Amino acid sequence: MADRLKGKRVLITQADDYMGPDFIPIFEEEGAIVIADTRDLTIPSAAKDLIAETGHIDVLVANLAAVHPRTSVENTTDEIWSEMFDKMVHPLHRLVRATIPQMKARRSGKIVVMGSASPLRGQNDTSPYASARGAQLAYVKTAGFEVASYNVQINVIAQTFVENERYFSKEYQQTDGFKEKFKDVPLKRLSTAREDAMLAIFLASEESNSFVGQAFPFAAGWVV
Amino acid sequence: MADRLKGKRVLITQADDYMGPDFIPIFEEEGAIVIADTRDLTIPSAAKDLIAETGHIDVLVANLAAVHPRTSVENTTDEIWSEMFDKMVHPLHRLVRATIPQMKARRSGKIVVMGSASPLRGQNDTSPYASARGAQLAYVKTAGFEVASYNVQINVIAQTFVENERYFSKEYQQTDGFKEKFKDVPLKRLSTAREDAMLAIFLASEESNSFVGQAFPFAAGWVV
Amino acid sequence: MADRLKGKRVLITQADDYMGPDFIPIFEEEGAIVIADTRDLTIPSAAKDLIAETGHIDVLVANLAAVHPRTSVENTTDEIWSEMFDKMVHPLHRLVRATIPQMKARRSGKIVVMGSASPLRGQNDTSPYASARGAQLAYVKTAGFEVASYNVQINVIAQTFVENERYFSKEYQQTDGFKEKFKDVPLKRLSTAREDAMLAIFLASEESNSFVGQAFPFAAGWVV
Amino acid sequence: MADRLKGKRVLITQADDYMGPDFIPIFEEEGAIVIADTRDLTIPSAAKDLIAETGHIDVLVANLAAVHPRTSVENTTDEIWSEMFDKMVHPLHRLVRATIPQMKARRSGKIVVMGSASPLRGQNDTSPYASARGAQLAYVKTAGFEVASYNVQINVIAQTFVENERYFSKEYQQTDGFKEKFKDVPLKRLSTAREDAMLAIFLASEESNSFVGQAFPFAAGWVV
Repeated sequence: MADRLKGKRVLITQADDYMGPDFIPIFEEEGAIVIADTRDLTIPSAAKDLIAETGHIDVLVANLAAVHPRTSVENTTDEIWSEMFDKMVHPLHRLVRATIPQMKARRSGKIVVMGSASPLRGQNDTSPYASARGAQLAYVKTAGFEVASYNVQINVIAQTFVENERYFSKEYQQTDGFKEKFKDVPLKRLSTAREDAMLAIFLASEESNSFVGQAFPFAAGWVV
Repeated sequence: MADRLKGKRVLITQADDYMGPDFIPIFEEEGAIVIADTRDLTIPSAAKDLIAETGHIDVLVANLAAVHPRTSVENTTDEIWSEMFDKMVHPLHRLVRATIPQMKARRSGKIVVMGSASPLRGQNDTSPYASARGAQLAYVKTAGFEVASYNVQINVIAQTFVENERYFSKEYQQTDGFKEKFKDVPLKRLSTAREDAMLAIFLASEESNSFVGQAFPFAAGWVV
Repeated sequence: MADRLKGKRVLITQADDYMGPDFIPIFEEEGAIVIADTRDLTIPSAAKDLIAETGHIDVLVANLAAVHPRTSVENTTDEIWSEMFDKMVHPLHRLVRATIPQMKARRSGKIVVMGSASPLRGQNDTSPYASARGAQLAYVKTAGFEVASYNVQINVIAQTFVENERYFSKEYQQTDGFKEKFKDVPLKRLSTAREDAMLAIFLASEESNSFVGQAFPFAAGWVV
Repeated sequence: MADRLKGKRVLITQADDYMGPDFIPIFEEEGAIVIADTRDLTIPSAAKDLIAETGHIDVLVANLAAVHPRTSVENTTDEIWSEMFDKMVHPLHRLVRATIPQMKARRSGKIVVMGSASPLRGQNDTSPYASARGAQLAYVKTAGFEVASYNVQINVIAQTFVENERYFSKEYQQTDGFKEKFKDVPLKRLSTAREDAMLAIFLASEESNSFVGQAFPFAAGWVV
C-alpha cells in the first residue's frame, strides 16, 4: 500500500454509518489524517459549523445515508419521502457549499460523494431512496462541472452490492428477495468494503485529478 | 391530426406554467378532455385533493415547474434550494401516489412527466435546478418500473431548448450566455412547443403502451 | 390512424427480414409509398445502386439484420464475427452515405435505423451481435449530429423483446433461457410489432423533426 | 508509487502507438513485467500467435489505434471505413478470444481496453472512428459480463483530450477546430498521459477486482 493520501486532511461525514466505519482505517493506512464526524447533518446549520470547525480540508468524503425504506410508491408516506432528502440531499448541498470556498481559494481539493446505483436501474420499492440518490448524481454532475476549472474535483461513487453489515447484512443476504436480485449480478459476489475504499482513495488522491463531475457505477456489474 | 386521445380525460397540473399553456390546445386537438389545474401543489394536501376532485384520470401530465435560479454552488441559499424540491419533486411523488391506485385498479393509465435535460449534462449555475430534475428522472425510472406490470406507464420528457416564452424568452435568446450555449446545439434551432406536445401525446396515447419508466431526452440534440 | 406519412416515399431495406414484413402494411396504413427492397446489401456496390434506382427518398428505414449467433466469446469464429459487421454495420454506412446527398440538397429527410438494445446491457453469448449493433448506435449518434443542421434527422430504435416470428419465435419463448431472461422484463410481455412500428412512424414523420442522432431504447423496460 | 503490478506480466499491444509509449515506463514503475508488442494485428492470425508466444499473461492492455480520419459521412470511403474496424475492432475480438482461456483456467486475469469517448457524444467528422470505437464499448460490456463469473475482468477506458504527441499534438492544439472544441471542456486542460496510466493501472491491479464490463469515460469532463 502506498501513502497516496499522506498528510491529507480527510473529513468523513456521518462516520458511524454507511461506508464510514469501513473507510476510516483504510484511509489511515494510506496516510490520511481522518476527521471522522458523526453529527446530525439534518440540522440546517450543522454543515457550516462542521466545516468551520474542521478548518483545512483536503478531501471531503460526503458519506450520507438513510435506512432504505423499501416501500412501494403507494405506501411511501410524506415522512419517509422527506427523510430521504433531509438526510442525503440537502446536507450534500450544504456541505459542498461550505467547503468549496477554501478549495477554490487554494485551487486544490477533492470531494468524493458516497452515492448509490439505485437511480441507474429500476427496481421495485426503491422510489424514495433512488430519487434522493438521483438528486445527488445530478448535483455532482453540475456542481462538479462548475468548479472543475478551479482544480477542485467532485465525483460520486454510485454503489450497490457492497459487503457491509449495515446495508447488506448476513440476514438480508439469506432472504429470497436478495437471492432473486442477486442472480442478476455478473460478479456473483458482493464487492468488498476494501474494494470500495480503493476506488474512493483513487478519487481522493492526486492520481485522479482529471475526473470532474463524474459518477462511477460500483455495482458488481449490475449496472455499468 | 388523428384523435389519438379521443375522449381521454387528461389532467395537466400547474397548467399556467411550463408547458401547460402550449399543451392544452394541442391536446384538445387530439380529442382529449383536458382538466387544466392551476392550484399550488407545494401545499402537502393539494395533490390528494386534486386527484380526488378530478375523479377518473386517463392521463396525468405532471407538469411541475420553478423559475430556474441560475445560481452558483456557493450562492445557492437554502431557500433557493428547497424551492426546487418543494415545487418539482415532492409534488411529483404526491401526485403519482394519489393517481396510481385508480390506474392500477383499471389496469390502464399514463403518467407523462414534463422534466428537464439539465441533470444529463453539466453546465454552470444549474446545480439546484438540475438536482431536483434529477430526482424526477430517478423517480420515473423506479416508480415506472414498479407499476409497469399493472399496465400503467410512467415516462418523462427530459427537455431543454424548447421554444417557450416562459423558459426561452426572446430576451433570453438575445443574451451572450444563451448564444454561447446555443453554439453547441446541433439542431441549430429551438424545438417548438408543438414538437414537444407531439412527443407528449405519443407518450399519452395507446401507441406507446410498452414504454415504462423511460426518460426521453428532448433537447435539440444537446443531449441524446 | 392519421395519414402521417401521406405520399412519403419510404425505402425499407432487407424488407423480408427483421421488422420489414411487419412494418410494410403499417407504414402503408399511414399513407406511405413503401419501396420494399430485398437485395443482398453485403455486396459493396448494392447500397449505391439501390439508392440510385429508388430516386427520391423521403424516409430510409435502415432495416439490417443477421441471425443472432448466441455464441460465447471463445466460440466466436472470425466468420461469425465478420458476418455481423458485413450485414449490419458496413451496409449502414453505405446506405446513409448514398442517401444523405439528396436529403441535404432538399434540406429534408429522415433515416430510421432499426437497431438493437443488445449493446446497452450485458448478457451472455451476445458479444458479436452486440458489438455490431453498438457500432450502429455510435454511427447514428455521430452521423446524426453531423447532418442535423441540414434538417436531416437520423435516429435509431434500440430494440429487444419485440414480438416477431423471426426473432422471438413461439418456440424460443418456450425455452428456459428465454424464460429466465424474461423474468427481468418489467412490462411482463413482449412489445408488439405494431407498437414498434408506431415508434418508427413517429420518427419517420414530421412530428419528430427535432430529434437528431438519438437512440430510443424500445425494450419493454429491460433497458430504458 | 506502490508496487501495484509487482511481478505481473503485462502485454501491451501496438506498443509504439496510442498510449503504448507513455504507458510502458509507468507500468514498469509499478513493478510490471511489460511485454511490448508492435506486430501488425490486422493480420488474422497475428493475435493468436502473439498470445501463444507470450505465454502467461496477467494483464492484457488492448491498445489498438488507427489514425482518426476526421472525415464527413459523405466523404468516408469504404477504405477509410474498413480500416477503422480492421485495426481497432476485429483485433480486439481476436486478442480477447485468444487470452480468455488461460485467464478462465487460472480464474484470474485483467483486460484493459484503451478505447475512446468518441462514441459517447456527437461531433462532426467522427462517424467512422466513433463507430469502430462504439463496437469496442459494446464488446467490453457483453464479453466482460460473460467472463465476470470466472474472476476475469474486462474494462475499457473511453478517453479523449489526453495529452499525447500522436493524438493531440502541439500543432493540432493550435488549430481553430481544436480551440473551439476545447471551450467545452470543463477541466480547461488536457489530461496527462500519466493520469491516464493511473486509471489503467488501477484497472490492471487487484484493487479493481469487482469492476466488470465497464466503460470509464476519461475525457476531462467533456463526457462523464
